[in-house]
Amino acid sequence: MKGRITLLPEEELHVLIEDELFILQRSDQFRFGIDAILLANWVKIRSQEKVIDLGTGSGIIPLLIAYKKRVQRIIGLEIQEQMVRLAQKSILFNGLEKNIEIIQYDLRKIRELFLPNTFSLVLSNPPYFPLLAGRTNLSQAKTLARHEVACTLSDLIEAAAYLLGTGGRFCFIHRPERLPEIFARLLEKNFEPKVMCLIQPKTSKAPNLVLIEAVMDGRPGLKVQPNLLVYDQHGHYTPEILGFYQKTDFSGQRGCNHDK
Amino acid sequence: MKGRITLLPEEELHVLIEDELFILQRSDQFRFGIDAILLANWVKIRSQEKVIDLGTGSGIIPLLIAYKKRVQRIIGLEIQEQMVRLAQKSILFNGLEKNIEIIQYDLRKIRELFLPNTFSLVLSNPPYFPLLAGRTNLSQAKTLARHEVACTLSDLIEAAAYLLGTGGRFCFIHRPERLPEIFARLLEKNFEPKVMCLIQPKTSKAPNLVLIEAVMDGRPGLKVQPNLLVYDQHGHYTPEILGFYQKTDFSGQRGCNHDK
Repeated sequence: MKGRITLLPEEELHVLIEDELFILQRSDQFRFGIDAILLANWVKIRSQEKVIDLGTGSGIIPLLIAYKKRVQRIIGLEIQEQMVRLAQKSILFNGLEKNIEIIQYDLRKIRELFLPNTFSLVLSNPPYFPLLAGRTNLSQAKTLARHEVACTLSDLIEAAAYLLGTGGRFCFIHRPERLPEIFARLLEKNFEPKVMCLIQPKTSKAPNLVLIEAVMDGRPGLKVQPNLLVYDQHGHYTPEILGFYQKTDFSGQRGCNHDK
Repeated sequence: MKGRITLLPEEELHVLIEDELFILQRSDQFRFGIDAILLANWVKIRSQEKVIDLGTGSGIIPLLIAYKKRVQRIIGLEIQEQMVRLAQKSILFNGLEKNIEIIQYDLRKIRELFLPNTFSLVLSNPPYFPLLAGRTNLSQAKTLARHEVACTLSDLIEAAAYLLGTGGRFCFIHRPERLPEIFARLLEKNFEPKVMCLIQPKTSKAPNLVLIEAVMDGRPGLKVQPNLLVYDQHGHYTPEILGFYQKTDFSGQRGCNHDK
């Protein structure tokens, strides 16, 4: 049963899964891209997983994870008040308020909010661009989501390391051009990158996104998966990506064995 | 004009480029694989390049670089005496003794052999496997070529860093499972990984080799190239790989503009 909400003029309702899952977006705010869809579908969920999404924005990742992977409880952390309210409204509309909690907080102060080793899985679709690099968006809100203003790569990895214990997993999506720095910072914090999947827009294009799973205190050895192709030669989504927009969990990953 | 040599019973003559370039291999020693072919063809050569190949083995990389890319002068460093003699014999047979010099030396003592910043390009197809990991080859000579007995990843990167100045390039091939460590060690020595190309045996298989170009004191930003496919769906070499076995430099990279 969906909750009742009233849409503000700047709010738009998007369909995530037909007749099933919806998300609110604001015209004046950063909107989710395919990155969040990729991460939420790619990540493997184990039973009894304790999940947090760092920088959850409009709550796209918690919504997909809670619905498609049947995660009972997931926390989304977000620094911007307006985005927190938007995410909470989406959660209410989808009737997922028992599964998802959105907390407005600065992840650089995570130690004041949680005890160490509180989670088993940390997710993030963080800002990709170092401050002052690339085009800086005029809107302050959009800048926070794209540029490392309130959260650098090191901030993010440090927060994830604090929240996880041995064997805990940190799964995130980023840009391949930053892979060297990503791997170096992960190793510094005792994360071992275990799985990597490069995302290629189409066969003729170089990869422009990368999915990474790192394990706290893991054994060395990175498994590089075959690249994930977004569009086929006709400009249509590949079967893998189409599956990401369907109700069934195409990736065959284990969900919890209890329904919501 | 080729030099005259006498083959020993354990020596075999292999054709690298028909009627043009040959290499000796020993039945009791590590033989070159596609890795060396990939690296020698992938690397971009600039004019007046000062090149050294660390752990040159039978001299496959200097032979290909000198012949196909018309590099006037390249040094190959090799710790094993038997391999040094084999490489020198191949060089003589191909009439490339003015272009290639093979030196028997331990790269861990590189500071006793060269001044810092002596080269502009360091190449290497090093041993891939940490000591005690994987199957350890019974032959001591083959073990040295496959396992990090006489040359760890750190030894190699340290030697390359010593030999290159700002802007100098270190191009090598390795295994993708070691990418996190590779990137972390490179950054520690002020190398910035700039180009990466994953090698995929075929479409359905995950990448099993990776080509990397790192620049000393370079600006951050890794360019990930589309994966290089070795075999097509019929089990034949792809056009790119076929080009690697031909006289013309398929990759369109600049050679020096003077002939040998």
